[in-house]
This record gives sequence, C-alpha cells and structure tokens, in this order.
Amino acid sequence: MIKIDLNCDMGESFGAYKMGNDADILDYVTSANIACGFHAGDPSTMKKTVLLALEKGVGIGAHPGFNDLVGFGRRNMAVSPEEAYDLVVYQIGALNGFVKAQGGAMQHVKPHGALYNMAAEDAQLAEAIAHAVYDVNSSLVLFGLSGSELVKAGERAGLRTANEVFSDRTYQSSGQLTSRREPNALILDDSEAVAQVVRMIKESKVKTVTGEDIRIQADTVCIHGDGAHARTFAKQINQSLQEQGIFLQKIGETAAI
Amino acid sequence: MIKIDLNCDMGESFGAYKMGNDADILDYVTSANIACGFHAGDPSTMKKTVLLALEKGVGIGAHPGFNDLVGFGRRNMAVSPEEAYDLVVYQIGALNGFVKAQGGAMQHVKPHGALYNMAAEDAQLAEAIAHAVYDVNSSLVLFGLSGSELVKAGERAGLRTANEVFSDRTYQSSGQLTSRREPNALILDDSEAVAQVVRMIKESKVKTVTGEDIRIQADTVCIHGDGAHARTFAKQINQSLQEQGIFLQKIGETAAI
Amino acid sequence: MIKIDLNCDMGESFGAYKMGNDADILDYVTSANIACGFHAGDPSTMKKTVLLALEKGVGIGAHPGFNDLVGFGRRNMAVSPEEAYDLVVYQIGALNGFVKAQGGAMQHVKPHGALYNMAAEDAQLAEAIAHAVYDVNSSLVLFGLSGSELVKAGERAGLRTANEVFSDRTYQSSGQLTSRREPNALILDDSEAVAQVVRMIKESKVKTVTGEDIRIQADTVCIHGDGAHARTFAKQINQSLQEQGIFLQKIGETAAI
Amino acid sequence: MIKIDLNCDMGESFGAYKMGNDADILDYVTSANIACGFHAGDPSTMKKTVLLALEKGVGIGAHPGFNDLVGFGRRNMAVSPEEAYDLVVYQIGALNGFVKAQGGAMQHVKPHGALYNMAAEDAQLAEAIAHAVYDVNSSLVLFGLSGSELVKAGERAGLRTANEVFSDRTYQSSGQLTSRREPNALILDDSEAVAQVVRMIKESKVKTVTGEDIRIQADTVCIHGDGAHARTFAKQINQSLQEQGIFLQKIGETAAI
Repeated sequence: MIKIDLNCDMGESFGAYKMGNDADILDYVTSANIACGFHAGDPSTMKKTVLLALEKGVGIGAHPGFNDLVGFGRRNMAVSPEEAYDLVVYQIGALNGFVKAQGGAMQHVKPHGALYNMAAEDAQLAEAIAHAVYDVNSSLVLFGLSGSELVKAGERAGLRTANEVFSDRTYQSSGQLTSRREPNALILDDSEAVAQVVRMIKESKVKTVTGEDIRIQADTVCIHGDGAHARTFAKQINQSLQEQGIFLQKIGETAAI
Repeated sequence: MIKIDLNCDMGESFGAYKMGNDADILDYVTSANIACGFHAGDPSTMKKTVLLALEKGVGIGAHPGFNDLVGFGRRNMAVSPEEAYDLVVYQIGALNGFVKAQGGAMQHVKPHGALYNMAAEDAQLAEAIAHAVYDVNSSLVLFGLSGSELVKAGERAGLRTANEVFSDRTYQSSGQLTSRREPNALILDDSEAVAQVVRMIKESKVKTVTGEDIRIQADTVCIHGDGAHARTFAKQINQSLQEQGIFLQKIGETAAI
Repeated sequence: MIKIDLNCDMGESFGAYKMGNDADILDYVTSANIACGFHAGDPSTMKKTVLLALEKGVGIGAHPGFNDLVGFGRRNMAVSPEEAYDLVVYQIGALNGFVKAQGGAMQHVKPHGALYNMAAEDAQLAEAIAHAVYDVNSSLVLFGLSGSELVKAGERAGLRTANEVFSDRTYQSSGQLTSRREPNALILDDSEAVAQVVRMIKESKVKTVTGEDIRIQADTVCIHGDGAHARTFAKQINQSLQEQGIFLQKIGETAAI
Repeated sequence: MIKIDLNCDMGESFGAYKMGNDADILDYVTSANIACGFHAGDPSTMKKTVLLALEKGVGIGAHPGFNDLVGFGRRNMAVSPEEAYDLVVYQIGALNGFVKAQGGAMQHVKPHGALYNMAAEDAQLAEAIAHAVYDVNSSLVLFGLSGSELVKAGERAGLRTANEVFSDRTYQSSGQLTSRREPNALILDDSEAVAQVVRMIKESKVKTVTGEDIRIQADTVCIHGDGAHARTFAKQINQSLQEQGIFLQKIGETAAI
C-alpha cells in the first residue's frame, strides 16, 4: 500500500491578528507544522493549535523560523550555524511545552520560510539544524525539501527524515522549487496540482519547468492553509489521493525505522 | 542537619548586551534561575548558561517573565490568568529544550520581576502559574515569595514549593518585601544581610522594618548576581552559612516529598 | 453651523497580517489615527496609510500605544510618566517621518488602547503625554476621552484638544465608558448608535446606562474600522450626520484657537 | 585649514542593558550617530543621548539599523529596497521626535552595521536609503563608507554626503574594509591608527593590507565608543589631530554646499 503524509503550516495567528483556517484544514491533513513565536504564532495561539491538532489526531511538528515577525520569517538572514542551532532548540522546546502540558508527543520539525530555503542548500546550516533537532529529541522526524541538504544532514545526524514535495509549486531541473519571483512558480490549476502530487508519490517523478522529468522522493506533501481557497483544495487533494489508492497516514506512523 | 538552597538569577545577557557574572556566581549557589528570552536572555545565552550550570552541578530553573524586554520584566502588566499560563508554559518549554539537548533535567521554576510580585498577591494569577508548571512537568519545584499566594497555589496544585527569602531586602509586618521605592528597602551592610539570612533559616524569624519579629519560612535564599560586588557577597554568604553549620544543597535534593 | 470631526483607527496591519479596511473607511471619516509600530503597524504599513490619508484629504494623527504587539496595546502596563513621555515622542516622530517624506503635515495625536484609558484617569500620565505632544509640535491637537484627565492635561499644556465621544459605546454616570467586560458596553443597533452621536453633538448630552442624562462635549466621534460591518456603518453615520445638518470637517480646520 | 569630522556610535544602551561611554566620548567627537530603537537604543536612551549631544554641541545623526536587536543589526538581512526606505524613514523620524522636543536640529544619517555594509556595495539598496533621507529632510548629510555606493547614491539624490574612514580598521585594495573575520582586520596599535587617520586626512591615501597605497577621501572619521579603552583613544586621536593642525569641526558646518 502506498502511503503519504499531508502537512500544512498552522498556528500562524499572532495576538489580535488572525491567519489561516486551522480548524478547517486539520480535517484533511495528517501533520501540522506549528509556528513557534518567532516568525509567527504566540503562546496562546500555540496552545490552541496544539489542542486542535491533538483532538483531530494530527501529527504535531515544530515550525521554527527566523526571529523576524514583520517579515514573517521569509527574509534570508545571515545567521551563523550556531545561532541557527540555538533558535531551533528554543522553538522546539517552546512548542514542546504545550505538547507536554496537554499530554501529547511531538512528531516532527519543519523549518520555516527563509530558514527552510537556506537550509536546503547550505550544508553547514542544515547540519546545525539537524543536530538541534537530534539533541532535543532524536526520535523527531526532520522535514526538508526533497533531496535537499537538510534531508541529507538529517540522515547523517541519525534522524528519521521526510522528503517534502509541494502541491502547487513548479520544479527546476536541479530539483529546486521555482522562485516565487518567477511568473511560473505556482500551479494555479487544482487538477494539475493534484496530478503532479499523485505522480510524485506513485512514480517518484515530476516534470520540470523545462519539460523534462526528474526523480523526486515524496514522503510528505505540503499544502497551504491560508486564503479563501485553502479549505476547498485541502479537501480535494485529500479525496483525490484516497481515490488513487494512496493511504494518508501521519509520518510518525510510517517513517519508523 | 539544617539545609538551605541558595539561588541566583542568571542568563540575563541579551545579544551584544552583557549582564551579570554568571560563571563566577555559579561557584557559590546551588540553584540558577535562567531567563527565558522574554524579559531577558536569548537562545544563545540560554544554551551557554545551561551548560555552565550543568558543569557546576547547580540546579537549573526556568525564570519566566513578562514579554517586556525594554522594561526587563519589572513593569506590572494586566495579563489574564490564561495569558500568564501560556507564557509560563512557553518559557519553561524553551529553556527545557536546552536542558534536554545537554542531557540534563530541570529542577525548578521561579517567575521573574513583576510576574513574581503580582503572583505573590493575586491568587488567580498564582494558580494559573502553578498549573502551567504542573502541566509541563509535575516534578518541578515552584519558587515563590515565602508565605505568598504563589507558594499556596503551588501547594494546592500538587507541586513541591520553595519559600524564598531575600538576603538584602527588608520585610514588612505583612511578610511582604519593602518596596524598592522606600529608602529602607535594601540592607546594604553585608554582615547584617548574612545575619538576617541565618536567623531566617535557623529560627524562621525576621525582624521587620517596624521592629517586631514575624515568622518566615526559608527554603531557598535569593542573592543577586549583577554589580561589581555580587561575587564577593556570594562567596561571603556561602561561607558564612557553612560556618553556621548550615548545609548548602540544591532544592531538588532537599524538597523531595 | 454645527461641525464635527469623525475619526477612525487605521494602519493596524503588521507585516503579513492584515487588519481593517482603511481604504474604504477613509472615504467617510475626516481624521485617521495611524498606528506607529508599537501596538500595531509597521514602517511599510505606516507609509501606505499616510499616503492614502493624504490622497483622501483626511487629517493625519499619530496613534501611539504601549510596546505590546501581542496584546495589541490593550493591556495596562505600569509605565512611569517619563516612559510614557518617551514612547509618545518616539511614535509621533516615527509617523512624522512618513508624513514629512510625503510632504504632508500631521494634525493630531490620539493615544491608543490601554494608554488612552489609563491617561483618561491618571493625571500624571496624562500630563506626561500632553507634554510629549507639545514638545514635539505644539500645533498638534490632542484627542482624549471627553472630559477626561487627558483633555484637561492637554489644555493645561497649551495644546488644542478634542473631546472624543464613541458612537457604539454606552456611558456611565461618571462620564466614563462602560467597560467592555460588561454586557451592556456596546450599542449594537446602528440607528441607536447614530441617534446617540447626533444628540451628543447637538445637545451635548448622553443618556447613561442608569437612565439619566449627563453633559458631554463632542469634538470628534470615534468609529471602528475593523469587522465586515465597519464600512457600512461608516457610510451610514457619515450620511446621517450630514442629513442632520451637521458638517463633517477635520479637527485641524475647526479647532483653531 | 584642513578640517575633519570625528564621529562615534552612541545611544546603544537598551532598557536595563548599558553599552558605551557616551558622556565621556562626547567630549572628543564632533558628530554622534544615535541608535534609533531597531538594532539598539530605546526611547528613553534616545532622549538622554540627544540631550547630552545638544549640551556638548555635538552634531546629531540618526543611526538606523535592521530590526534585529538580538543580532545588534550586524547580520545581513534580505530586505527589499522599499523595506529599507521604510525602516530608514521610520528611524530618522523617531529620533527627530526627540531632537525637535529638545529644540535641536538633526545633522546627519549614518546607517548601522549590516545595513551600512550592504549599502556600501548594493546600488539599489543605497539608492533607497538615500531617497529615504532626502525625502524626510533634504538638508541632512548622508554618511557612507568612503567611495562606496552609498555615498554615490547620496550624491545622485542631491544630498550632502560624508565619506567615512575608520581609524582602527585595515583596508583592501578595493577600498573595502578588511572583514572582521580576517586576523588583520583591526589596527590594535593606537599610534598606528592615528597615523593612518592623519595620512587619510592630509594625503587622501591609505596603505592597504597588500602594501600598496590607494586614494581615499576622508570627510569624517569613525571611532568606537565601547570598551574600556574607548575614552582614552578618543582623547588621543582628538589631541593628535589638533597637534597635526587638523581642525575638528562637525560635518554640518563644513559640508555646506
């Protein structure tokens, strides 16, 4: 049986500022990446989001980002590997406070935004992040861009890893995502997005923007939770994958060594 | 044998800003209250301070405060009990990330500054803090002003508690500390400070500013770690207590039920 | 001719977080209170909001608040009068940077949230705020709760002041707003809200929650800009006031000494 | 008569955290670059520093930096030119609030840390900063690394500019400073540092790390204000320059077109 994890960023509200449709989306995903207060999220939002995820049986992950709330963690910052280690340990710990307080267990860690992108290519940064995760809890699964330095660093560190693919993004021949600055970065047609995901899961292949096929491993699929359309697409991809005979299961139950 | 715990606030540096003499003071105390990034401290400082405390065998405590870096957590804020719960869980968790990453175990929690003072008198706030501590880890010891609402709330919640007394502060008949705004708030003479501490430990009594004796329980004594004088006083009180036949032991080893 | 100023809080978005319907509401108000980056707002939002207000000919005001983004500046904080002075000067200055850069002129200052409420009753705090405004620019109009300490302090400082009334809030016999914690704090019926405003403007009277009439001065009326309903109500109150023969004019043009 | 401006970063304390020896250093410099609350500084520190500078007759400059307090604004951040424009306008405005409140006038703007370094090489970023300064107050002098893109952008924007040289840093053949990561980045010998400065001022030349001379324009010399040694060096360079017949004068009085 083919299995896949479906993940979504969550808990991105901050104080009076609301973002996302967490309660809705949680019905359709198997793993939730919960913001930890640096690029988004605040203690009260974290508590509520952890509670929601536990109620729905969704795998809980820390989603650490740069300390750049106004930039939503999307702007590259020249942090040292040691600083990256420290901010990842801090944020995993903070989220874990709420998970423990509610009697749950954390499943995974997925770096956010610019930290995720930088760690996909910078082996030193990736290694620092992987060690941070391992040192806090060696049973956590590390999510990274499929085939990236972050996944490799996680494996070297002895972590279980999950190669992540994106439903609505196009790919370069290098395996990298097309930058959002490019006009063809996004797949706007839902059916096309679903078809790309199914093929990545079943055939481990994706057609790049230049037309050729490349190999890609898909352990978990990222969908987006904000925007009016998010709930509809979450429901659609969930159902389409099941119709294709793909079993949706949170990574913590499939990735066991 | 009479035993006492000696604690000090630590890890209060922030980025390029240095505060305190942690490495020096750690030689003379048995418990360290480590700032968690809200009123002071940052991830890198937390990591270093945890490492130092573990090396010296000093008990590690989270020192959560208000999210008010510019006010150093010393300004009262009208947080709801639920908000207090959330910020305490978050900060304990964050520090615990570093403790776990270094293979240690957290010993206690001591709220900082305005949060500590408000929780000494506000039973609802105290209860929220006590529950936060209990929910994250019910084996943690909760530090509060001796005889305060915070200690009572900790006991009701089922936590081990530590009644804290201050070496260099004067007391009111109510058992409260004299406000720092009053001219006689501080005991400036070291010998007098030490004598007050010895009496609080041995006789459970302290002479108030109005001259009478009140009963006071001393499970842990707070000394201050900043200022040029801090190291000298830490050494002096440490030696004086030992000369008085009082055994210095971290609270985690004495407070066991 | 009876004149009134109609004001609304604006520029409360922050980075990726959107709040309010500024562009819509600006068609119906005469003064905009623009958040300055402490309780809400960020430099880019401030620039855009100033530009919008200038395009619509709406009076621009600084809306300084406590440095408490996660609490949206709504939580009381024990700041000293000197700290209040400093944070008001800072925030007026910051907004004025954008006003000057676009060739405009600032019209007024209205403290936000908890700072506004505290300054309504605390004469020392009110005085510090009034002096801050006066020292930066003595021609600015200071907005405060009608009849409050803040308005009195502004007058003593030599500032032009605007007594502010609220369209959708009920009043106590003391002239204070009913706390939002009370069930009858809000006027939910739009016609009732409009009628209250018209009476405050024309008769300088308002019926309190206990049924009696009290005198109240209305120089400016606050309406709210967030919520799906905000634009509709803004349009309605704007039209209703005009139908009542009340001329809408920004305070800078009416309040001249 | 040969004239030079001597500048120093100031106002870098934050809340309870003290940094620098502003009152001491102000006796020996002619211009002060005052932190504006993003990378360092807070409203109260800004007020006090502006007051000190006015008392000593020292030229006041805004020292805007990245919104990265924990990194002290020293870490490169991928801000867009528009974001840079906005954060510079905000910070100049904020400092100007205090300058106006004290009846003074701002003289100059010098970007801080990573923003300064990035703007030295990135023409687009430099242009955004120059426009921000110009738009707020076209009479301000823009400080930038001697010969850098920032100085060029300032000139194109119609601003008066000041080519800045460093007393204690070594230079590359390209005119860039040697990175602090290199072992030979700093000139540790005071006499050598002074000699380099004198030569830059009198001959417009500096010997690079590879031994050749390059041309360099020196309109203002940066000295550092933190460290136990800072006051001594400030006094020494001040006296040495005067002994060499170089007249110390704040840039606002020398740079007039």
